[in-house]
Amino acid sequence: MKNLNRLCAEFLGTCLLVAIVVGSGIMATNLSQDIGVQLLINTVSTVFGLIVLIQILAPISGAHFNPVVTLIELIQRKTTLSTFIQFSAVQIAGAITGAVLANAMFEYALIETSTKIRSGSNLYLGEILATAGLILIINLLIAQEKTTLIPAMVASWIGSAYFFTSSTSFANPAVTVGRMFSDSFAGIAPGSVLPFIVAQVVGSILGFGLFKGLTR
Amino acid sequence: MKNLNRLCAEFLGTCLLVAIVVGSGIMATNLSQDIGVQLLINTVSTVFGLIVLIQILAPISGAHFNPVVTLIELIQRKTTLSTFIQFSAVQIAGAITGAVLANAMFEYALIETSTKIRSGSNLYLGEILATAGLILIINLLIAQEKTTLIPAMVASWIGSAYFFTSSTSFANPAVTVGRMFSDSFAGIAPGSVLPFIVAQVVGSILGFGLFKGLTR
Amino acid sequence: MKNLNRLCAEFLGTCLLVAIVVGSGIMATNLSQDIGVQLLINTVSTVFGLIVLIQILAPISGAHFNPVVTLIELIQRKTTLSTFIQFSAVQIAGAITGAVLANAMFEYALIETSTKIRSGSNLYLGEILATAGLILIINLLIAQEKTTLIPAMVASWIGSAYFFTSSTSFANPAVTVGRMFSDSFAGIAPGSVLPFIVAQVVGSILGFGLFKGLTR
Amino acid sequence: MKNLNRLCAEFLGTCLLVAIVVGSGIMATNLSQDIGVQLLINTVSTVFGLIVLIQILAPISGAHFNPVVTLIELIQRKTTLSTFIQFSAVQIAGAITGAVLANAMFEYALIETSTKIRSGSNLYLGEILATAGLILIINLLIAQEKTTLIPAMVASWIGSAYFFTSSTSFANPAVTVGRMFSDSFAGIAPGSVLPFIVAQVVGSILGFGLFKGLTR
Repeated sequence: MKNLNRLCAEFLGTCLLVAIVVGSGIMATNLSQDIGVQLLINTVSTVFGLIVLIQILAPISGAHFNPVVTLIELIQRKTTLSTFIQFSAVQIAGAITGAVLANAMFEYALIETSTKIRSGSNLYLGEILATAGLILIINLLIAQEKTTLIPAMVASWIGSAYFFTSSTSFANPAVTVGRMFSDSFAGIAPGSVLPFIVAQVVGSILGFGLFKGLTR
Repeated sequence: MKNLNRLCAEFLGTCLLVAIVVGSGIMATNLSQDIGVQLLINTVSTVFGLIVLIQILAPISGAHFNPVVTLIELIQRKTTLSTFIQFSAVQIAGAITGAVLANAMFEYALIETSTKIRSGSNLYLGEILATAGLILIINLLIAQEKTTLIPAMVASWIGSAYFFTSSTSFANPAVTVGRMFSDSFAGIAPGSVLPFIVAQVVGSILGFGLFKGLTR
Repeated sequence: MKNLNRLCAEFLGTCLLVAIVVGSGIMATNLSQDIGVQLLINTVSTVFGLIVLIQILAPISGAHFNPVVTLIELIQRKTTLSTFIQFSAVQIAGAITGAVLANAMFEYALIETSTKIRSGSNLYLGEILATAGLILIINLLIAQEKTTLIPAMVASWIGSAYFFTSSTSFANPAVTVGRMFSDSFAGIAPGSVLPFIVAQVVGSILGFGLFKGLTR
Repeated sequence: MKNLNRLCAEFLGTCLLVAIVVGSGIMATNLSQDIGVQLLINTVSTVFGLIVLIQILAPISGAHFNPVVTLIELIQRKTTLSTFIQFSAVQIAGAITGAVLANAMFEYALIETSTKIRSGSNLYLGEILATAGLILIINLLIAQEKTTLIPAMVASWIGSAYFFTSSTSFANPAVTVGRMFSDSFAGIAPGSVLPFIVAQVVGSILGFGLFKGLTR
């Protein structure tokens, strides 16, 4: 039953995270013509939501909500291959459900396919950097025994990276898949998804390498 | 006398909360034509105010300011029916007083009736989600013995939900009633109030169910 | 020498506070045509600055930066009349110096007189509410032995009140005097100063009364 | 090897800081026409990023990322001249690398020269004030044994100073050099760099003097 709770927490957290990202993106474009204001709204909503979700669900599942976070735990043998597979599955299922929820709240078709092409090596560089930073932060804070700071620090990093990376920082394969299913501000066209995920995996390994290098 | 203090704290907190929500809504429409900027102002003011009100009044009354929060305490037998009735009454009275205060500060008629119709099943879904999250957060943090985080986490959740839910997250029957009495940005027409409250009650029970499920 | 340190800290804190309020107001009007964005900039700068100033100077002087905060300490016999007079004098001198500093940074005449008339009983109500809240917050947190939260809670309250009060929340007689000396966004015409200060004193006494009532 | 870790942490932190400042500046000008919104984006990204970088790297290197911070440690004999020289060198190298990284993410030429002239004694006054405040904050918090607050307080100060100082608060010679290499929102023309650095050194000494005066 304990494992079911963990899977439910990962599902719920990733679902709400994508509902927040996609929903606030739709709200933003409904309200303002200024794309800077739109991304500010998207960022504020994501930062406030993410800190809460990690805070309340970390005691149950660790609050990964992100396959590459679980992958780095697997590489460190902190978790099993079976858990990695189960977590990734519910994270992706949660992410898609979150997009459906956002679509429903804003009267879009429940399942859509985004037409927003996001490609270019400069965007992939943005994803690599955003994901590397995310993995570095989480692992350094764990090594420094400051896990209570993870919710605020992860949310802050994502809030910063929404603006300073060229890709607006997806940094999460499950969330990337989820965002494919809403044709709105935060969407990503199916054809753009795979390179984003590759960049995120590369970034996570780079971030882990930086972590190992800095803590030798 | 202790109980009178608790009722005064609930009255004052809900009063100031509605004064903040309605007042900053009026200020926002006075200052900007961009509705995105207006909602940013409304959100920033609400988040900053809510964290303070919960922080300073929680030691006195628990800082519910919200009948569904008290309702969930009643369901868990943490409080009595008599307290639920008294709290709800002063929360509603406080909320109306807060709207009057905001109207007075901005030279509106002291008591107005909002003409802002807010209806549609997609908005009710927004209210269900916002309220479910609120109840889940409060109860998980209590169960995790992290009550000191409640002010920041509740304010963060509301700040996020202002943007990502289609209803802009009222999530509070007393505040919903109060917002009926100002014909401004944050208002809600009387005919829209009942379905909002029903959705909030449904959301609170859903949130409590999620809490029980996740902590089995 | 210890007392000189306290007076220097009050001078420096109030000086920097007014430099922040006035300077960011000038910057805001230089950068944006949207008054909502201008007040957002003014608020963000004030909140971030105020939390820092209170945090670093509280161990030296208590970080009042505000004659009505010292006045309420005097009423409670936590401080002497002599300290109240000395603190008020350096707070006002610091506030004026802060306005001069902001004027110098933005190439305004060093000493100006604001032409911005701020009057009306509804604005005075805003000042009463903002100041009452400020005094209530500080005194409740002291009574609850949570003084470490004062920097964040006071800054949050001011950030909220910038938007929800009709007067944009001066809530400080020394800062009000200082803001008279810059003819810019945050300025106040000399003829508007006295009623603002009267409202602030009334608000501070109301806030103290609320504090006494809630903690009986 | 320990020293190599420290140098790597200073390089990485300063590199990411400049990537954040320059990258979010480019993003801001890509998204909005409103310069106030642009600076809000630049500020939000910098504050969120800076708090994270200081938090995670302080246990390794002290998280200076700034030659004048190291200089004041040298003056207090808390560090050696050799460390000051090594730190300054990797901070500057990191800053330049960060600008290259931002340029690469946004498809600018990897190395550019900014054409943005920033001069005038009023801007230098802004730099003096911003840097003095930074040094005062860091040293007071160390003296008060509240080093855990340094990440949040330094980030808050910079966030405030972005708006209230006329120079938008560079406050860091290494970052100033780095910002020379991107011809974008956050850039600074080579001819403007030296007076900025002089003002920052003057400000750091003034800040240290204020610290010594307040803690006599």
